[in-house]
Amino acid sequence: MSLTIASAPGKVILFGEHAVVSGVPALGAAIDLRVRARIEDAPGKLEISIPDMRLVIEGFSLDLITEKVLTEDISKKAILAARYVYAVLKRFDASNLRVVVESEIPPSSGLGSSASVVVATLAALNHHQELGLSLEDLAWESHQVEKEVQSGLGSPMDTALATFGGYQLIQAGPQQSLDLPELDLVVGWTGVPHDTKFEVEKVQNFRTKYPHIVGPIFESIGEISREALNLMKDGQLEELGQLMNANHGLLEAIGVGTKELSDLAYAARGAGEALGAKLTGAGGGGCIIAIPPTDPQGLVKTMTAISQAGGKPFHVATGCEGARLE
Amino acid sequence: MSLTIASAPGKVILFGEHAVVSGVPALGAAIDLRVRARIEDAPGKLEISIPDMRLVIEGFSLDLITEKVLTEDISKKAILAARYVYAVLKRFDASNLRVVVESEIPPSSGLGSSASVVVATLAALNHHQELGLSLEDLAWESHQVEKEVQSGLGSPMDTALATFGGYQLIQAGPQQSLDLPELDLVVGWTGVPHDTKFEVEKVQNFRTKYPHIVGPIFESIGEISREALNLMKDGQLEELGQLMNANHGLLEAIGVGTKELSDLAYAARGAGEALGAKLTGAGGGGCIIAIPPTDPQGLVKTMTAISQAGGKPFHVATGCEGARLE
Repeated sequence: MSLTIASAPGKVILFGEHAVVSGVPALGAAIDLRVRARIEDAPGKLEISIPDMRLVIEGFSLDLITEKVLTEDISKKAILAARYVYAVLKRFDASNLRVVVESEIPPSSGLGSSASVVVATLAALNHHQELGLSLEDLAWESHQVEKEVQSGLGSPMDTALATFGGYQLIQAGPQQSLDLPELDLVVGWTGVPHDTKFEVEKVQNFRTKYPHIVGPIFESIGEISREALNLMKDGQLEELGQLMNANHGLLEAIGVGTKELSDLAYAARGAGEALGAKLTGAGGGGCIIAIPPTDPQGLVKTMTAISQAGGKPFHVATGCEGARLE
Repeated sequence: MSLTIASAPGKVILFGEHAVVSGVPALGAAIDLRVRARIEDAPGKLEISIPDMRLVIEGFSLDLITEKVLTEDISKKAILAARYVYAVLKRFDASNLRVVVESEIPPSSGLGSSASVVVATLAALNHHQELGLSLEDLAWESHQVEKEVQSGLGSPMDTALATFGGYQLIQAGPQQSLDLPELDLVVGWTGVPHDTKFEVEKVQNFRTKYPHIVGPIFESIGEISREALNLMKDGQLEELGQLMNANHGLLEAIGVGTKELSDLAYAARGAGEALGAKLTGAGGGGCIIAIPPTDPQGLVKTMTAISQAGGKPFHVATGCEGARLE
């Protein structure tokens, strides 16, 4: 019986979220929290298993998933993951398969879990069904699936990072891969799910109302992204941390901060002795990222402080490998 | 026996602190927390009384004050107030007087207490000794005293607001009085003293290091000040609150936010239902200001939330009367 396992990494936005819509650069990084998709032959059926749900689907109907889900009281995050897996399978007319997806990435946290689910599933399917997709195809097809499920939304950065790994810079056009050193970060999850669409629309409305106020804020964020690239190349972590703090304030200024995000950022910088901290992604919930101090106990200090402030800390390395067969 | 009582108001910066050094507008307002100075004849001596200290000075020697103070374990805030009173008396060769100063303004809170002490003392002295100072003279002389005691620092906005009351706009030159409607605000004091000089230097260092990042932030703050003037004229409190939140984020971005200030701002906006909140003044400690909701219980809600978050709330009205005889 044929079996394929593939995995894809999650991501963080290091600098530039929201402002990127105005054409200034944003920098994203793959992180070593991964989604694994296992595909095996299952003659006569199509089965999707997510940690706390198991769907057996006869034929192709997204409505059918919805129906089952609404009547079985299964967690929303599992439903959403199943939708992404299902959308991949449907796009390539796949059947007679069992797909099992496991994720290390907290869902709806801004760490790109949906893109990773899609890319890992498609990477496994690509090998299992010999679809012949290149990495570029994999990124593009995955982005189409994300857009389809999210009704037109979906960041091409997320699927690119899940596919290619490493670092991606977006600026007024297609993203490009960058060669930068690995960075040790602590991610602090607030536990508050975020709604990317809501936050993006809120910022755009604020920008439309006050272009002369928001324009310079986006400009400043873009300058931070540019400066940060050089600091990362040179390993100047203290300066990088200072710019993280600045970028966090600018994100608060455009209205995507929350008390929970602020609490974790101040805890990381204070008791956690982090060199800097900022919210990452769309805001309104989700996660912060912090650069822990470089002393031997640094990582533990930052993680403990985040934990004591009510967050869930993860240690991640940035710039890690993209989609791969396991 | 001749007796004169004069008073002068404290102040808040509504918008534009720090950025004003780059030539963008800042808006300050006198508030109805006042300092009262009582001057009476006291033949043969010079006596200064501050709430928790009483100095009897023979001759004029600032060193003498310092000596007494350091050996008597008197609070630093009282010492500082006495220094300001003493500097006023010395500047005008005043003697054979008893000066009693009482303040409703928390010291080192960014609410301009030192300027108010100076202006109230000089306003009383002006009448008591028939010095013949105009209001313009009073503001100018008071600013000189502030600069002298603070070794060259001291904001002309603070002494202008304590003297003229109302609202003052500063932009690339001398400040000007503005006619704007009264605003009900809640001030939330963190209880953490702040060090204006330290914060100003920190921001200037950050600006020198990253002019392309800080320049647009100052530009955005200036646009907020301009927009806020129109909103205040029209009484559009919700929009004004939104811009307060934005200005607060920009102040965080330049590094003058603290956990305590952030806690009070989020408490005011959250449980306190404030329409907006920001730190006021140099930051690094001191106070926030918040616009309470307009419903009958609005003021109580915002004050309670600030109190529960560990701050000390004051209800103030802005734009009130300047220095006056009582």
